[in-house]
Amino acid sequence: MIELPDDWRPVVAAARDRIAGHARVTPVGQMTLGGFDIAVKLEQMQHTGSFKARGAFNTLLQANVPAAGVVAASGGNHGAAVGFAAASLGHAAHIFVPEVAGPAKIALIKRTGATCHVVPGLYAEALAAARAHEAETGAMQVHAYDAVPTVAGQGSCFAEWDAQGLEADTVLIAVGGGGLIAGAYAWWGDRRRVVAVEPEQSCALHTALAQGGPVDVPVSGVAANALGASRIGEICYGLAQGRPAVTVPDAAITQAQHMLWQEARVLVEPAGACALAALVSGAYRPEPGERVAVLICGANPAPDPIAG
Amino acid sequence: MIELPDDWRPVVAAARDRIAGHARVTPVGQMTLGGFDIAVKLEQMQHTGSFKARGAFNTLLQANVPAAGVVAASGGNHGAAVGFAAASLGHAAHIFVPEVAGPAKIALIKRTGATCHVVPGLYAEALAAARAHEAETGAMQVHAYDAVPTVAGQGSCFAEWDAQGLEADTVLIAVGGGGLIAGAYAWWGDRRRVVAVEPEQSCALHTALAQGGPVDVPVSGVAANALGASRIGEICYGLAQGRPAVTVPDAAITQAQHMLWQEARVLVEPAGACALAALVSGAYRPEPGERVAVLICGANPAPDPIAG
Repeated sequence: MIELPDDWRPVVAAARDRIAGHARVTPVGQMTLGGFDIAVKLEQMQHTGSFKARGAFNTLLQANVPAAGVVAASGGNHGAAVGFAAASLGHAAHIFVPEVAGPAKIALIKRTGATCHVVPGLYAEALAAARAHEAETGAMQVHAYDAVPTVAGQGSCFAEWDAQGLEADTVLIAVGGGGLIAGAYAWWGDRRRVVAVEPEQSCALHTALAQGGPVDVPVSGVAANALGASRIGEICYGLAQGRPAVTVPDAAITQAQHMLWQEARVLVEPAGACALAALVSGAYRPEPGERVAVLICGANPAPDPIAG
Repeated sequence: MIELPDDWRPVVAAARDRIAGHARVTPVGQMTLGGFDIAVKLEQMQHTGSFKARGAFNTLLQANVPAAGVVAASGGNHGAAVGFAAASLGHAAHIFVPEVAGPAKIALIKRTGATCHVVPGLYAEALAAARAHEAETGAMQVHAYDAVPTVAGQGSCFAEWDAQGLEADTVLIAVGGGGLIAGAYAWWGDRRRVVAVEPEQSCALHTALAQGGPVDVPVSGVAANALGASRIGEICYGLAQGRPAVTVPDAAITQAQHMLWQEARVLVEPAGACALAALVSGAYRPEPGERVAVLICGANPAPDPIAG
């Protein structure tokens, strides 16, 4: 069992203050996309192209990082974020990435300066290799989503959005392992309606809510390399009780990804368009007058349009 | 001679009010890029991917558009903006585009719903064809940069940035024909230092300032299809007197373009990175403590990463 704070809000506020000057304050806007008038936060402009840098900085800044540095297993975005945060703070980083992550994500991790170990097989093999490295060297394992410092770090995104003047009744957020949306639940509680959006082919939260607890699920589809957690995090599951969760087909994710580029020149990976896909597909239908916000969470497409 | 307003500021303010709800309010931010702490405005998120939609809407909204609609000659961004504005307002649009504009820009224009005429040859041939269409049909010609409604419309970008809380001593702006920067001169006067940035291989303003008047210049290089005006506009030349203008090599433009993607996931065409290239290249060196802003003005790269 993970030990949880009684009151999340000050924990998120502390994370926000801790990572100030390390994570980027990302731009916000209000615009019409696909006929929907929405507030957006361009969190894909975060360092290494996803919100993950927030949790990574918060984790590293509050830890006593050993001389062996940090280690993470990742299909891409989390590994890049840990590598970037470690390099910024002067720590060594070893990232274990499954071969299936693909060349764009592997190049992304390498550009951070981390030592990148490409492991044959799937995420499970990369995780086993990362754990072996941890046991052997004493390096600190950085969790991708199911740890309090990670969730609190991701929550800083929403504290920041409030400070930027967000006006919204409802916020749509993509879910993989649930670290990001857990940060939103942690910060907002019942003050805004937070809607979880998962791909139909990768819906660990939806399945857990239906079955009364986290279970392993199959993952596939266009967003699987970023949202394809096979089991929802405990922290997210606990906070998600009684809150709305919808799923979207891959076709809607692709349509939303194209819409973001064609209508607003925001180039994202499929995961970064997943929340918007809830509007595109009608999986979430706002009431008349309901003010809706969409977090754009990641922009590391393959192939990389400009390789480094 | 173009008849100019005695006082530009109310003309720009009127344009801002006129196009409200038609042009998009584009997001702004403050971030470190390439080691420079800068304010940015993401004007490449404007409709059709460049600031040009502002001037197009302002021109069409204040004109008595004839039944034959509007006509423009363009290498790409202006034509797309005129096509988009015309479609939004219910007018027919005929855009004459030189074959050399390339398939991405031609597709961009076609997506607006405009009738797109691809003319063999260069811009001069497209312009001649557009003028013949105007003479034959009575359609209204929409000028790309050297007209008061165009300049006032582009100026709305800077009025908007002020309202978004811009804190900057100096603003770097890319120059092609000079419509955009003329809008900045028109709105700000001497209240901020506006620095013109041109590619070395396409520097109509720099040449005009050196020679004491607008002259024809050769144009080439990576940004030529957006910034390659062969002669600076009269309006821009008049307003630019005594103001700083720098040039940047193509290599710096490409470096800035890569930096925007790799560090901030902002994908732009070379012209959209030209202003930032002044910092990258050292063509403009801020004083210690000087607060610098960079306008990101266009994002229609070739090839289009997601063709519509």
